Amino acid sequence: MFSNSRVTRRQVLQLIGASAGGAAVMNTMTAWGHMPVAAQTTPPKLDGNGNGTKVIVLGAGPGGCPAAWELVKLGYDVTVIEARDRLGGHAFTVRGGSRHTEYGKGEEVCTWDEGLWFDAGPSRIPFYHQGFFHYAKEFNIPLIDHKNLNLNAWVYMEDVAGPLNAKRMRLHEMQADMAGYTSELLAKAINTDQLDSPLTAEEDDMLIDYLINWGMISARDLTYRGTDTRGYDVLPDTQSPGKIGTPPSLSDWLPVASAALQWQGGYLSATAAFDWQTTLVKPKEGVGQLYEEGFKQALGERVHLNCKVNEIRQSDDGVRIVYEDTTSGEVQEITGDYCLCNIPLSVLLRIPSDFSSDMKAAIQGVPYDMAIRMGVGYKRRFWEEDDQIYGGQSFTNLPELSILGYPDNDYHAQKGVLLNAYAWGTDAAHLSTFSYQERIDRILDMGVKIHPQMKEEYESGFSVAWHLEPYSLGAWPNYNERSRTQFFPRLQEPDGRVYLVGEHLSYVNAWIEGAVQSAWLQVEKLHSRVMQG
Amino acid sequence: MFSNSRVTRRQVLQLIGASAGGAAVMNTMTAWGHMPVAAQTTPPKLDGNGNGTKVIVLGAGPGGCPAAWELVKLGYDVTVIEARDRLGGHAFTVRGGSRHTEYGKGEEVCTWDEGLWFDAGPSRIPFYHQGFFHYAKEFNIPLIDHKNLNLNAWVYMEDVAGPLNAKRMRLHEMQADMAGYTSELLAKAINTDQLDSPLTAEEDDMLIDYLINWGMISARDLTYRGTDTRGYDVLPDTQSPGKIGTPPSLSDWLPVASAALQWQGGYLSATAAFDWQTTLVKPKEGVGQLYEEGFKQALGERVHLNCKVNEIRQSDDGVRIVYEDTTSGEVQEITGDYCLCNIPLSVLLRIPSDFSSDMKAAIQGVPYDMAIRMGVGYKRRFWEEDDQIYGGQSFTNLPELSILGYPDNDYHAQKGVLLNAYAWGTDAAHLSTFSYQERIDRILDMGVKIHPQMKEEYESGFSVAWHLEPYSLGAWPNYNERSRTQFFPRLQEPDGRVYLVGEHLSYVNAWIEGAVQSAWLQVEKLHSRVMQG
Repeated sequence: MFSNSRVTRRQVLQLIGASAGGAAVMNTMTAWGHMPVAAQTTPPKLDGNGNGTKVIVLGAGPGGCPAAWELVKLGYDVTVIEARDRLGGHAFTVRGGSRHTEYGKGEEVCTWDEGLWFDAGPSRIPFYHQGFFHYAKEFNIPLIDHKNLNLNAWVYMEDVAGPLNAKRMRLHEMQADMAGYTSELLAKAINTDQLDSPLTAEEDDMLIDYLINWGMISARDLTYRGTDTRGYDVLPDTQSPGKIGTPPSLSDWLPVASAALQWQGGYLSATAAFDWQTTLVKPKEGVGQLYEEGFKQALGERVHLNCKVNEIRQSDDGVRIVYEDTTSGEVQEITGDYCLCNIPLSVLLRIPSDFSSDMKAAIQGVPYDMAIRMGVGYKRRFWEEDDQIYGGQSFTNLPELSILGYPDNDYHAQKGVLLNAYAWGTDAAHLSTFSYQERIDRILDMGVKIHPQMKEEYESGFSVAWHLEPYSLGAWPNYNERSRTQFFPRLQEPDGRVYLVGEHLSYVNAWIEGAVQSAWLQVEKLHSRVMQG
Repeated sequence: MFSNSRVTRRQVLQLIGASAGGAAVMNTMTAWGHMPVAAQTTPPKLDGNGNGTKVIVLGAGPGGCPAAWELVKLGYDVTVIEARDRLGGHAFTVRGGSRHTEYGKGEEVCTWDEGLWFDAGPSRIPFYHQGFFHYAKEFNIPLIDHKNLNLNAWVYMEDVAGPLNAKRMRLHEMQADMAGYTSELLAKAINTDQLDSPLTAEEDDMLIDYLINWGMISARDLTYRGTDTRGYDVLPDTQSPGKIGTPPSLSDWLPVASAALQWQGGYLSATAAFDWQTTLVKPKEGVGQLYEEGFKQALGERVHLNCKVNEIRQSDDGVRIVYEDTTSGEVQEITGDYCLCNIPLSVLLRIPSDFSSDMKAAIQGVPYDMAIRMGVGYKRRFWEEDDQIYGGQSFTNLPELSILGYPDNDYHAQKGVLLNAYAWGTDAAHLSTFSYQERIDRILDMGVKIHPQMKEEYESGFSVAWHLEPYSLGAWPNYNERSRTQFFPRLQEPDGRVYLVGEHLSYVNAWIEGAVQSAWLQVEKLHSRVMQG
């Protein structure tokens, strides 16, 4: 088993040649049943003390917070300048009273009752994001499961051929029927020697056994006719053992299944992917808890909210930050020895600065994606009461709406909030052109196709188009091969006395974990420089 | 959409001919996208008042509790006689201080710290068990997710051919690789016209698209080479995009996959089945909460604990129950107008009674299964800290141990309890022959193959062999075609003034829901009789 410490990781990476490109072959590594070489799991263990060296952290987001906190623990004099009225950045749990402003849309204020919330940014934590877990433990943030794939939720595809067009179907129906039919096809092909099988006769038999079991096909004739995995037309009780539903044919399913898996770049099939498997957790009251409670208390008065950075200046001796208190309009300056900058590149490129030309080119060289997420509060949890959906997501190909996310918390409470739309790319662009209320009206018009109760139970909604948000101007960096090679290495290196920090400085983009890993990396670099200084 | 009310359900069942056998065809029903005809979702809405009619309920289990409580609400004078020192019956959440006695084994007392627990009986609630949900709502019992399938848990198969013998592998590795290889085989067969495909050319293309997406095979050559769904050898971070693991070959996997799916009658593949899909919830502190808190408070002093039924007598006028206070040894009698009996058939057949001969034959005609579940408390949650397993189960073919269940609650707490063995059939029989401590020693010897930390972190354990428990003498009824036809209908009917109640009176056996549905059915029958009285 490999140690999780940084040094060992680096040694291993060198050893096996798995450099940034990741192209190197590492057959020596494949020791099945071993743990993967982990990313760093705890903050770097560093010797020495910052002795009051003054560090200004720009942005109290998922990168700025852990960076500031580790520096505090190392004896630095830390000041955090944050433009928003809260810590957390994109990790934004919207609750009653939450505020948010987009360019051209004005301010929206959330009016939900206490206890209701939705995550407008990242909302779920994969099992291997140990940087996040480190702070969740340190600050005693309780975790609950995040159910990414609830097979009792709906799949709904429009404009597809066949009888299942525009019908909401349970995911367990699609999953069971498609597994059944594909297993039948493969098992019969093997059984009748229609296949150039790479397997021995004994292996063929094992594969057929496997297909019978997972695919729920008949052991007698290898045919799929539906089993209880696909669900019932009549549920079992005291009166009857129930009646298993009759599956639509494979031909009926194909247009839906094919469309469902291709929609939004495979968002449904991604529920099986490493990051999104049945392994996700999250803070009990939204990811914002880690920042609103944990880091807020830890960092205390070091954090200056509602302070927007106007200029980032530096000399050989130190840094100077010009910022504006957006509540008073007052412009102020602060000086320090170093700066750690957690501002997204999309915003940073617009802030006057003394960055070197190659750094400026790198900052400008990484485009950002658009994304919008909408939470809608309802008077009644009809998805639980009427549809028996406890958490998870419904998948639709309704443009702009796309995903319906159900709360994994407070089952059986009276009211609830749905993630009522999650769109990116041009869908996000289009939906974000509308006013806050128009966005909701549009989404409800679509949503009633899945949940007819939506309009009747509607209370109020809240949407965040990250690309229109002045302190984000984008959802996450959209690296391609070129920007990763040409600009990413430069961005990871300090420019004079300024170090960038955030998920955009990692390969774990759009995840909180990337920001934590980056914070640890930059703190280590900065501290090493100060100690050598 | 179908109404959930009882009358409508019965009408629908009649309409479509789906009688007890469930054999009737009901193609008219298959209105895709509709809700299934539900079992009863709320207690029967009954007119009239029991006006103090005296009902003695034998057993405060999952059938007795709701029956007693509904009768109380209908104005009956209810007394509950319970042999154990707690309510809940098989719904037994073991906590520090819990006690339990098996024939020949003496008493065991649980010594875990406060807050630690495991469910020795039923532990998870499928989304459609609305009878359970009804009471969880009524008594404000908070629910959390139950993660049945955590793809980051382990699969471990011994005595199988090939290089993966006796290697612990992550479930996501098996799932991704097997999906990949089977998709590759099928897609290539379709693509090269090796298959007698029942599909059109256009449908063939859609199916190949589907396989590319779910099966993660290359769109270029339809070959599976491993994707991030199978996991990493090196995790992504700030340094590298990570290195995806190299999959074992299909030939390497087959012995493991085939064995894993056949073990224990397909317990792993059952995670995809209707009852066990990614849709399960449970009370936050164990299913026992519903009884220890909810029903206990509701029923109050009507429940007499530690009272073992010695005789069940009846005449034309009433019932007479002879019972023994097991704390004092005192034998007492109680009389009433009717009796609702929640005692398992396996125990009931040994209690002297006036049941009619056909009722006695029915009671004796249903065999029960054996099962043992063991909880082991550990000083450290090594499965979270070291293996990043947050809830779910590991699947092994180690006889007697078989399943490792991880807590879905209190992630990151210091200590934790594993479901450290779950066996039935002859495995349960064998493991249960040992003393409580010997059982634990055996299981730890096996368990270290999956979690080497087990012996070092071990604190104390608690096992329940239900077939050796005097008030259960079995885990659940094992109906076959004959006993279902010959005895089940008789058991559902009253014998004189005695009505049986429990999961054994339903088609939802071994689930709490079956007991609730049965309670509602028998309360309705009894009340109807009293009203006609």
